[in-house]
Amino acid sequence: MANFSTGDAKKLFVGPGFSLADISPQSTPHFKGDKDKLEHEFEEIDKELSELQEMLYANWRAKVPGTGSVLIVLQGMDTSGKGGMIRHVIGTLDPQGVDLAAFGPPTEEEKAHDFLWRIRNKLPRIGHIGVFDRSHYEDVLIHRVHELTPLEEVEKRYGMIRDFEHELAKNGTRIIKVMLHISPEFQRENLLKRLDREDKYWKFNPGDIDERAFWDDYQQAYEIALRRTSTPDAPWYCVPSDNKPYARMVVKYLLLDALRSMDMSWPPADFDIETQRRRLAAT
Amino acid sequence: MANFSTGDAKKLFVGPGFSLADISPQSTPHFKGDKDKLEHEFEEIDKELSELQEMLYANWRAKVPGTGSVLIVLQGMDTSGKGGMIRHVIGTLDPQGVDLAAFGPPTEEEKAHDFLWRIRNKLPRIGHIGVFDRSHYEDVLIHRVHELTPLEEVEKRYGMIRDFEHELAKNGTRIIKVMLHISPEFQRENLLKRLDREDKYWKFNPGDIDERAFWDDYQQAYEIALRRTSTPDAPWYCVPSDNKPYARMVVKYLLLDALRSMDMSWPPADFDIETQRRRLAAT
Repeated sequence: MANFSTGDAKKLFVGPGFSLADISPQSTPHFKGDKDKLEHEFEEIDKELSELQEMLYANWRAKVPGTGSVLIVLQGMDTSGKGGMIRHVIGTLDPQGVDLAAFGPPTEEEKAHDFLWRIRNKLPRIGHIGVFDRSHYEDVLIHRVHELTPLEEVEKRYGMIRDFEHELAKNGTRIIKVMLHISPEFQRENLLKRLDREDKYWKFNPGDIDERAFWDDYQQAYEIALRRTSTPDAPWYCVPSDNKPYARMVVKYLLLDALRSMDMSWPPADFDIETQRRRLAAT
Repeated sequence: MANFSTGDAKKLFVGPGFSLADISPQSTPHFKGDKDKLEHEFEEIDKELSELQEMLYANWRAKVPGTGSVLIVLQGMDTSGKGGMIRHVIGTLDPQGVDLAAFGPPTEEEKAHDFLWRIRNKLPRIGHIGVFDRSHYEDVLIHRVHELTPLEEVEKRYGMIRDFEHELAKNGTRIIKVMLHISPEFQRENLLKRLDREDKYWKFNPGDIDERAFWDDYQQAYEIALRRTSTPDAPWYCVPSDNKPYARMVVKYLLLDALRSMDMSWPPADFDIETQRRRLAAT
């Protein structure tokens, strides 16, 4: 019996009564194997992921009606492993089928539009797996914590986000929202590593230490956002992430589940195979 | 002694007197190892490639003045392995540092501009490795073969391309242009495979067989394009590609060479390390 499954991953769904404090960042829920060998646990599904990704891409290229896309939204505190997730999980996919977008502070042009404008601009193409490194959730996280937007505006955004994501889902996008949940102690360790190695200095920003003073406010903002925007067609998963290989495994299984649920097959030939074989032989 | 080197890869440079007919698509020039074990030959440089890619990205993030980019242009006949190159070579890089663009037939909007407009739009960001799957060279290849543009206009484009690429190079882009050189027999085999397997039908286009009738015209158009646009700062490499692992190895070494030539180092800390350690310890 496998040590983990898509069903196990989906148990991390943020449902009614969700409380962030109930989830230990160090834990590895539902994983039945050896925690120290987690790195190798998820390799076995790479082949299936790769095949399903190609099938999705093929359906787009062959213009099969109803072909959808996948959107993975990654959120988490600094050093929670968003970059590593992209490198190690998304990096095993074929880059031709991946649409990656990172959202930093908005540019002047982006600020001239509503907060979802830049998000819509970066939505994955049909047949592609989109990955958002941060997202429209920053507009209800940092904006709530630092009051960058009046609270009554922030309050409206939860509903706007639900509507937006519902529209995406209806248009055929499988949405997977992942909060990489880490502890403040784990973040301290990670930041210290960035100060210890010259090849990590570039990742260090003194402002990250200032933000630690707002840890509890961020946790609260996350809890509110997750509770209000986790829906059946745009689910949030709260993934304990002090153990990085565990978090990566979970995301792989969530992606696998999304791809399987599309119930795809290879596009049929839209030409007569024997005719083409004869034509080719004649060249 | 290694079986291949960056110096070996650079010997495939298209220089004066280049003749495509002199290069056998089946050959594996300068490779001194066992051809059947080529798949494993290039793995040893993955670690260095990965480190240099991260360093390039780090220099961009740290806003180090003069940070450049890399642009790999992939051209070749149908089934020459452009997609596989992206999947297997570019796919081993961190997707966060890769800017990938595929150029198909131009859209109406693209046709409303000069032929370099859509190319400029997709140039890699500073600190990134850009990969073009087809490129502005289609405008002197298929356009020449099928006279989609009057010949006198096509003739002007070689100079425009040289100027454009020279400007890019001066702006800090290391350009690597690769022609994946295959034989018509190898293409026939590849097309037959697409007719043999249901998971390959989507890649087959009956028009690809029609294009085989123009094989010699394409070879001539390639030869002209390569001769006229291979310059020291925007070199073409003609890479025999009937042996796919060989072609992939060559591109890895060319990329390695470009990254090494940037002579980078890790960006220095722009903060006092001890101060930050103390601040962090206090949180």
